[in-house]
Amino acid sequence: MVGRSMAPVPLLKDELDIVIPTIRNLDFLEMWRPFFQPYHLIIVQDGDPSKIIKVPEGFDYELYNRNDINRILGPKASCISFKDSACRCFGYMVSKKKYIYTIDDDCFVAKDPSGKDINALEQHIKNLLCPSTPHFFNTLYDPYREGADFVRGYPFSMREGAPTAVSHGLWLNIPDYDAPTQLVKPRERNTRYVDAVMTIPKGTLFPMCGMNLAFDRELIGPAMYFGLMGDGQPIGRYDDMWAGWCTKVICDHLGLGIKTGLPYIWHSKASNPFVNLKKEYKGIYWQEEIIPFFQSATLPKDCTSVQQCYIELSKQVKDKLSKVDPYFTKLADAMVTWIEAWDELNPTSEGLAKLSISNGPAK
Amino acid sequence: MVGRSMAPVPLLKDELDIVIPTIRNLDFLEMWRPFFQPYHLIIVQDGDPSKIIKVPEGFDYELYNRNDINRILGPKASCISFKDSACRCFGYMVSKKKYIYTIDDDCFVAKDPSGKDINALEQHIKNLLCPSTPHFFNTLYDPYREGADFVRGYPFSMREGAPTAVSHGLWLNIPDYDAPTQLVKPRERNTRYVDAVMTIPKGTLFPMCGMNLAFDRELIGPAMYFGLMGDGQPIGRYDDMWAGWCTKVICDHLGLGIKTGLPYIWHSKASNPFVNLKKEYKGIYWQEEIIPFFQSATLPKDCTSVQQCYIELSKQVKDKLSKVDPYFTKLADAMVTWIEAWDELNPTSEGLAKLSISNGPAK
Repeated sequence: MVGRSMAPVPLLKDELDIVIPTIRNLDFLEMWRPFFQPYHLIIVQDGDPSKIIKVPEGFDYELYNRNDINRILGPKASCISFKDSACRCFGYMVSKKKYIYTIDDDCFVAKDPSGKDINALEQHIKNLLCPSTPHFFNTLYDPYREGADFVRGYPFSMREGAPTAVSHGLWLNIPDYDAPTQLVKPRERNTRYVDAVMTIPKGTLFPMCGMNLAFDRELIGPAMYFGLMGDGQPIGRYDDMWAGWCTKVICDHLGLGIKTGLPYIWHSKASNPFVNLKKEYKGIYWQEEIIPFFQSATLPKDCTSVQQCYIELSKQVKDKLSKVDPYFTKLADAMVTWIEAWDELNPTSEGLAKLSISNGPAK
Repeated sequence: MVGRSMAPVPLLKDELDIVIPTIRNLDFLEMWRPFFQPYHLIIVQDGDPSKIIKVPEGFDYELYNRNDINRILGPKASCISFKDSACRCFGYMVSKKKYIYTIDDDCFVAKDPSGKDINALEQHIKNLLCPSTPHFFNTLYDPYREGADFVRGYPFSMREGAPTAVSHGLWLNIPDYDAPTQLVKPRERNTRYVDAVMTIPKGTLFPMCGMNLAFDRELIGPAMYFGLMGDGQPIGRYDDMWAGWCTKVICDHLGLGIKTGLPYIWHSKASNPFVNLKKEYKGIYWQEEIIPFFQSATLPKDCTSVQQCYIELSKQVKDKLSKVDPYFTKLADAMVTWIEAWDELNPTSEGLAKLSISNGPAK
């Protein structure tokens, strides 16, 4: 504790939860101890709830297994995926903090080109605490970073930027490839450290990966639904993509920014490409229709909260994607259930008055 | 010549011209000799045409001063700026090559993080010869680069990409800042080498700098008009910005891509911020109206050539920007003159039949 008392207070120590979905003992936290120990962890245990997940000593955490999810959400637990890391979004819902960082348990501390350990969480927090620039492209990347600025020709009226809702971090070693690319390039490793953070422009979709992701729960939390994946569903490995498409459309509508780039984590091992192909194959052809749908989706002006936007989007999903597969009808319904569950666990001051005690979180 | 015969043949040796606007002796070419000497240079001499510009021995070049421009273009020479580096676009027009690289004479060879000299031209050629990805964002940057690919969630139907029309390079040392930023941060230097090339997404404008720029003349040449700047004009230092806005709108319409990032050059010295402020100040407030104009500009489907797009854009400029300042009426007319001059110097096979010999280039 002596070392700790000498260190500066970690950024946002009491305002951020780290959400980890897992099916195994969390030994990977040992490597993250210097960076994560000051923060509160929310562990979402997937799979068999009778299994005991070991968490290394000294971490402050709460753990939810499937029984907990069912008890807390009741019938609304149907919107939380089982046997898929999509279950992590339950952690976003039960958190009471302003910020979330979520990381996979096969992600380790990466090193920057000078050989120094990268404090990924600190970089995410920096990304979230300074504005984004979704309305015009800055060729020298993040203009708010030390040593950088807006270049000649950048409109002065846009230099205040937009609030940053999401910070999307990247991966050294095993890149986040789909099953076909994994199969074709089994030995490809990402060794390129790109020293940049940038804003994804308004109107542009991106493939959001949930492996190393931070966001502002107050600004965008209810859009971070990871969909219906895994057990009993026809699809997997599209949980974070789904959340990314919805989140981007809503951020664009609400004038919020999404950053991508730094920080890197070290992604230790590639998942099985054959298993992945089975999970992904429907997504691989569905996305050819889903992406044009999201590219052309617009939200009405009177949708001013994330919840309103998300409910509206669920209607459009039902209307326009159900023809692709009946799955999207079920998903659209689950999107509504998710928002209902979110509002139940996160009552606003107005909402609180209406809410009966029996519906509250059973914690 | 022994060294040269041993070296591999430089990429696109007979298909690329290097265009350099200047008012001084071109000693800066000495440093570029290993990379530029195999290529043909087009030097556009600005200012006093009686001044002799010295070009280091061994370079293959043609040089045009104001008298040459007036002789070749006749009355249409009015569209080429005088006493401003915007005159460089005359070089794009007289070139007969497929590709152009343009560089300022205060730009030197930069070093990569390993200390190796950067062959900027080679990187530009690589950028131009592989596709762009304007329709969806790839989080691992240029997916065509060695060691990279499309990430999970990138639609397979979009992986062919779009032809790359423009490669926009960056600057180490003196960043390309406007006068107010130069005044506020006189000592800022760009020391961050970002090892990335990326496509600027469709629908997003960017500030295009002409200092270190390459493009495919056949794909986009007629849009690369650097406007009316300098002598007799109310504005300067917006030549490349103007070209960038027009080019981006037209590339988006025609399904062409624009890349930015690598290569870096070493920008040796900052121009005088007080002089720059005088040139820029109208642009600084005009751009607050110009940029929304370009952000919302759309071109009709029947505009299928760059020339058609550019003429249509000139009409929209006259209609919508003339209220900002009468300058834009003059600029819109110059845009038309530019296209007329371009077509005169670059007759197509159909055009050739109609063209009388007296209108041809006097070379």
